[in-house]
Amino acid sequence: HQDQDELQQHLKEVQQVLSRQHLVENLVHRQDMPRHDLVEGLVHKQHLAELRKKLDDLHSADIAYILEALPLDDRLQVWDLVKAERDGDILLEVSDAVRESLIENMGRAELVAAAEQLDADELADLAPDLPNEVLADVFRALPIEEREQLREAMSYPEGSVGALMDFEMVTVREDVALEVVLRYLRLFEELPDHTDQLFVVARDESLRGVLPLNVLLVNDPESEVAALMQVDALTLSPEDEADDAAQAFERYDLVSAPVVDSQGRLIGRVTVNAVLDYIREEAEAEQLAAAGLREEEDIFASVWDSVKNRWQWLAINLVTAFIASRVIGAFEGSIEKLVALAALMPIVAGI
Amino acid sequence: HQDQDELQQHLKEVQQVLSRQHLVENLVHRQDMPRHDLVEGLVHKQHLAELRKKLDDLHSADIAYILEALPLDDRLQVWDLVKAERDGDILLEVSDAVRESLIENMGRAELVAAAEQLDADELADLAPDLPNEVLADVFRALPIEEREQLREAMSYPEGSVGALMDFEMVTVREDVALEVVLRYLRLFEELPDHTDQLFVVARDESLRGVLPLNVLLVNDPESEVAALMQVDALTLSPEDEADDAAQAFERYDLVSAPVVDSQGRLIGRVTVNAVLDYIREEAEAEQLAAAGLREEEDIFASVWDSVKNRWQWLAINLVTAFIASRVIGAFEGSIEKLVALAALMPIVAGI
Repeated sequence: HQDQDELQQHLKEVQQVLSRQHLVENLVHRQDMPRHDLVEGLVHKQHLAELRKKLDDLHSADIAYILEALPLDDRLQVWDLVKAERDGDILLEVSDAVRESLIENMGRAELVAAAEQLDADELADLAPDLPNEVLADVFRALPIEEREQLREAMSYPEGSVGALMDFEMVTVREDVALEVVLRYLRLFEELPDHTDQLFVVARDESLRGVLPLNVLLVNDPESEVAALMQVDALTLSPEDEADDAAQAFERYDLVSAPVVDSQGRLIGRVTVNAVLDYIREEAEAEQLAAAGLREEEDIFASVWDSVKNRWQWLAINLVTAFIASRVIGAFEGSIEKLVALAALMPIVAGI
Repeated sequence: HQDQDELQQHLKEVQQVLSRQHLVENLVHRQDMPRHDLVEGLVHKQHLAELRKKLDDLHSADIAYILEALPLDDRLQVWDLVKAERDGDILLEVSDAVRESLIENMGRAELVAAAEQLDADELADLAPDLPNEVLADVFRALPIEEREQLREAMSYPEGSVGALMDFEMVTVREDVALEVVLRYLRLFEELPDHTDQLFVVARDESLRGVLPLNVLLVNDPESEVAALMQVDALTLSPEDEADDAAQAFERYDLVSAPVVDSQGRLIGRVTVNAVLDYIREEAEAEQLAAAGLREEEDIFASVWDSVKNRWQWLAINLVTAFIASRVIGAFEGSIEKLVALAALMPIVAGI
């Protein structure tokens, strides 16, 4: 975990190693040294080892940040050095444009391996960017339960609760003692991220209530789940709008909330980190839209891509200006008689 | 807990009771019925009882929402019906402008009572809006430890981590077994909201690490805290910028993070709900600023208040238009010769 300053520092160090590498390449080539292949290879290897070590110590989100800040060639060089088992996580973290550039340069086997490390809900987020044959391969390799989850997660439109939902819930029965729940939890290797409550379900998977970990921890282990669970907890439906869910999380200070279908069966949960990402993305999309940009823009994209993004706005702007000029042209006669009118035009436009 | 539709429904019901009340008042007064005071009094009491019952069932954040949506008279009537022990919570939830209107209409004793229910960090958020003598009364009534916390919380500028921080941490020592920690937690009535990890501190209050509840729950109760705690957790400093903290919460999917002073002593924590509120407020402030408004505006504020908020922007707009017109005026001679120039002006302005 790094704060903003440390992160900048890491980025600078990576850039330094890369620029030293470029420098050596140039020097060796220009001087036409004897056995320059050998020298270059050695130095290169040393630099790569240094970079790889640095990357191994960083959080996936930090590597994503560094990848976004590098120009394409350097980005791909760094991407090659990242451990294969972290590829999936990092692809989820980077922006859409950078993700495209990385996926374009990965082989099919590499992509399948990266996708297979992800949970069904994460895979659903990544799916639109993956080539179809990769998606098919991954789908075939999934266990049946996860296949169902993936199909479900992909069926909800963007901006719905279903698209924010994940499937990592810990469920318990209502007729057991807290002691039993505590022993059950010890069977887990680790609990899913953002588990602040367990979901109490009946045999038919219908949600009976929630048992916050806080309640589990402060109460007598002999008490029964049914006596302590909260039955009036907020539940979401997968068709709800993500905006409404975000407001509920903000209003009631939630960490997670269960998602139930129309029959009241528990099908997933939404966590505060998904909501936070959603709010941030919405805010950014609004700001970019105000400047005539789409989210997908990459700061290292070609000028041509930027022009494609913006020309419509520029064109509309120009067309309205021409219309205004035609209108003024129609009154040329009056303006000729009373030139002061021209001076008043910007005031009228300003209002 | 209510979702957005239910909340709208509650608001409508409250508005209906209020409008029925207004209707009865008008009818009774107009018809000049015998003993109309008695009839009016009875009906009024019935309406108030109905409203009070409805309000008692609602979450503080929902009452805040309803208060914001009502015009001033109705707002104060509803505010009088809210249970006194919830006043503090609700004052924290409403927008700045509505809070001002409520505080203006509360007595000193009422305000002191409301403020005394709050934690030090919440009190610090409310303090700028409280009259000085109320703040002094509350301050005198606080226990010494909380007085220190309040002074500390109020010393950090808005936009710093210190201003987001709260003081509700559960701390444990590193040389005890998980079993002991579990027994210690059972001594609590309840754990603070958003407790996803316990803070491991030494005798001098310096932070040694954090023990996530997930780790506490899945591991053998015989193991020692020292063996399981995470020592590389992200720590914040109260002087850090809130923006950086928000990015760290988003990047690393945190629920809470410890705040330490320059000597590494634990002084508080930041939770994801404070971060979420902060992000939302920032985004809203930006949008309002773009429309020439300040956050403090109340939709029921008088026209005069709105004018006060906006006249500067309007004035600047007008002044620039006048300047443009002077510039054009200076070239009146050229325009007289070639009127087509006037037609081109809006195109130039459009670019």
